[in-house]
Amino acid sequence: MEEMKKELADVIRAYHQKGWSPATSTNYSFRLDENPQVIIVSKSGIDKSVFSAADFMEVDLLGKALPAYEGIRASAETLIHCKLYQLFPEMRCIVHSHSIYSVLQSMTNQNEVELSGYEVLKGFEGIKTHDTTAQVPIFDNTQDMPAFAEVLEREKNRLTVPAFIMRQHGTYAWGRNLFEAKRHLETAEYLFEVDWKYKGY
Amino acid sequence: MEEMKKELADVIRAYHQKGWSPATSTNYSFRLDENPQVIIVSKSGIDKSVFSAADFMEVDLLGKALPAYEGIRASAETLIHCKLYQLFPEMRCIVHSHSIYSVLQSMTNQNEVELSGYEVLKGFEGIKTHDTTAQVPIFDNTQDMPAFAEVLEREKNRLTVPAFIMRQHGTYAWGRNLFEAKRHLETAEYLFEVDWKYKGY
Amino acid sequence: MEEMKKELADVIRAYHQKGWSPATSTNYSFRLDENPQVIIVSKSGIDKSVFSAADFMEVDLLGKALPAYEGIRASAETLIHCKLYQLFPEMRCIVHSHSIYSVLQSMTNQNEVELSGYEVLKGFEGIKTHDTTAQVPIFDNTQDMPAFAEVLEREKNRLTVPAFIMRQHGTYAWGRNLFEAKRHLETAEYLFEVDWKYKGY
Amino acid sequence: MEEMKKELADVIRAYHQKGWSPATSTNYSFRLDENPQVIIVSKSGIDKSVFSAADFMEVDLLGKALPAYEGIRASAETLIHCKLYQLFPEMRCIVHSHSIYSVLQSMTNQNEVELSGYEVLKGFEGIKTHDTTAQVPIFDNTQDMPAFAEVLEREKNRLTVPAFIMRQHGTYAWGRNLFEAKRHLETAEYLFEVDWKYKGY
Repeated sequence: MEEMKKELADVIRAYHQKGWSPATSTNYSFRLDENPQVIIVSKSGIDKSVFSAADFMEVDLLGKALPAYEGIRASAETLIHCKLYQLFPEMRCIVHSHSIYSVLQSMTNQNEVELSGYEVLKGFEGIKTHDTTAQVPIFDNTQDMPAFAEVLEREKNRLTVPAFIMRQHGTYAWGRNLFEAKRHLETAEYLFEVDWKYKGY
Repeated sequence: MEEMKKELADVIRAYHQKGWSPATSTNYSFRLDENPQVIIVSKSGIDKSVFSAADFMEVDLLGKALPAYEGIRASAETLIHCKLYQLFPEMRCIVHSHSIYSVLQSMTNQNEVELSGYEVLKGFEGIKTHDTTAQVPIFDNTQDMPAFAEVLEREKNRLTVPAFIMRQHGTYAWGRNLFEAKRHLETAEYLFEVDWKYKGY
Repeated sequence: MEEMKKELADVIRAYHQKGWSPATSTNYSFRLDENPQVIIVSKSGIDKSVFSAADFMEVDLLGKALPAYEGIRASAETLIHCKLYQLFPEMRCIVHSHSIYSVLQSMTNQNEVELSGYEVLKGFEGIKTHDTTAQVPIFDNTQDMPAFAEVLEREKNRLTVPAFIMRQHGTYAWGRNLFEAKRHLETAEYLFEVDWKYKGY
Repeated sequence: MEEMKKELADVIRAYHQKGWSPATSTNYSFRLDENPQVIIVSKSGIDKSVFSAADFMEVDLLGKALPAYEGIRASAETLIHCKLYQLFPEMRCIVHSHSIYSVLQSMTNQNEVELSGYEVLKGFEGIKTHDTTAQVPIFDNTQDMPAFAEVLEREKNRLTVPAFIMRQHGTYAWGRNLFEAKRHLETAEYLFEVDWKYKGY
């Protein structure tokens, strides 16, 4: 577990360098195959430029802090992680960004970002050719996390790629391990940027 | 105090890397709870790519160098720091940027940058939801710092978030500690960029 | 060979930092003068942020893994490398990017990117003055690599500079050594960006 | 001299990181007060991502290699350095960039880039207020360096700030030491970028 914390913390700092998490924003989590009932999630309010392995805490599948972490605040958005792990039981890692191009896409598209013909679409698990169209769904932002978790459950069929956008907020992506979650987020963010620049041409 | 100098110097170099302080531009300060009568401020004319803990000096609340630092030039803008600490006595740290998007926003907006609906607005202390509008005020630039300090005092009621823009110059932000000042500046700069790109779409 | 693997791995990670290879995308190769029958090529599916000298494998000129690497998957695009080494026998290194500006250029130009009057054109081997026009050809993307290799052979006369674009995919560039291949790719990417921004003005 | 070589080499690599010198492009020089008859200039054809103190050579005021460096090629543009040191005898350091915004400005302006009202204008030696207008002259690019040196001499009166642009090529800036030359180049590049983005709004 310590190795995995260190690896994810390295990724978190690298993403901060890209501008994906100004100051304390965004949150991340993983689960281990040995004990998928426990979610290891980033603590709330940590500056992502200095995030370290010590800045994780453990919660149960409902987002409640385990006894060893009682009194420490998990991000309010922990409930999003809980719901995603419930909807996709094989998933082991969830990553998040507040990237500028994700936000911009959500301000000029209503329901989804439609992406066609890009080679990098193959970065999404299951896509084998550029000659396809993927839809990354956009959900309205809210501060009511239980309500948002319900939206995710109700509209699960829109999650046809392993990523979605919260409007004017950012991107969530997930995978069966950190490697895959990372690939999915980087794929989404790359496509949001190139597609935004193309449409603004 | 040495620890705090080192931490702020690290932030200054990281902000230079982002392009927020070409060459010797920008200035920064902090105060310690033990002795808030003393402002520890960046010396004038230091290249921010190599700014170190040794590049701070101490001034009093009127901006006058303490005896140990007599003859060393503080930035002319030290008076802005003095006035902000006077207006907001609980503040302990002030940071500054010459970011391109701050300058651009000030060239296309007259009195303020109005920011609505962004999740990252919650980076400003006191804002608890994206479903709000914040105004970051813009003041005309001047080389007459006493006059500018008076403007800040007279228009204090416009400082509804912990940041403002000097036109074609850059952003000032502050907080009760470095952590908070940093969060406020990064929040403002992120929002200026995304909002600029959205409006130019 | 170990030295060369290390050098190219360093370049691969630096290019990842530039955003040219989100997650596991892109591929790279080199050959040694001592044994140009062997192509040392990046293994498939490696995250480019952590690519190391251990992440290369060896294939023959038809792209078949050498016995020591049997069972390890080379990138499907290895066939592009094989064809380029066949068409340009003096070449020793091939580099690739999925840069955003390469993709954008290929979405707004049909057959080629035409670049005129830039000093940096001299980065392409054989060009001695800015006062010239170069055409970087664009080929349609495909997942059928044998077919694409045939296209390259048939249209070799369009390869008047040591680089081409695959549409909505990225740039390939090559040289007589890593130093030259690197120069050609960086030259192409720089020109694609400046030219894109100029045309969008 | 070794210390100064190391410092300038550090700056060269940092500027490469900013994208100001793709591959082997750009060139740099300095002179020492002890012996201003000797120009220490970057060797031709060195990849700027790995430029080190060993990659300088020495030439006389006409650009001829000193005996210890005979047979090593200085950049053709060394003659520009020679002419600038002749025109401004107090200058000790010249830096250069191929930045994208310098090139873009030169493609949309004929004779000069006019910059008004920016605080960062104060980065140019002698400018004390933002409330001014500076003109950075643009000269047509050429491969005929003796001819270009004559143009510089003939039009010296246009060099009212310590920087100029060669069209579709890049920026030269200079100063009485590395610190000042660096400040002048970073000032120019920052202003070119913000001004370009403002005009394209």
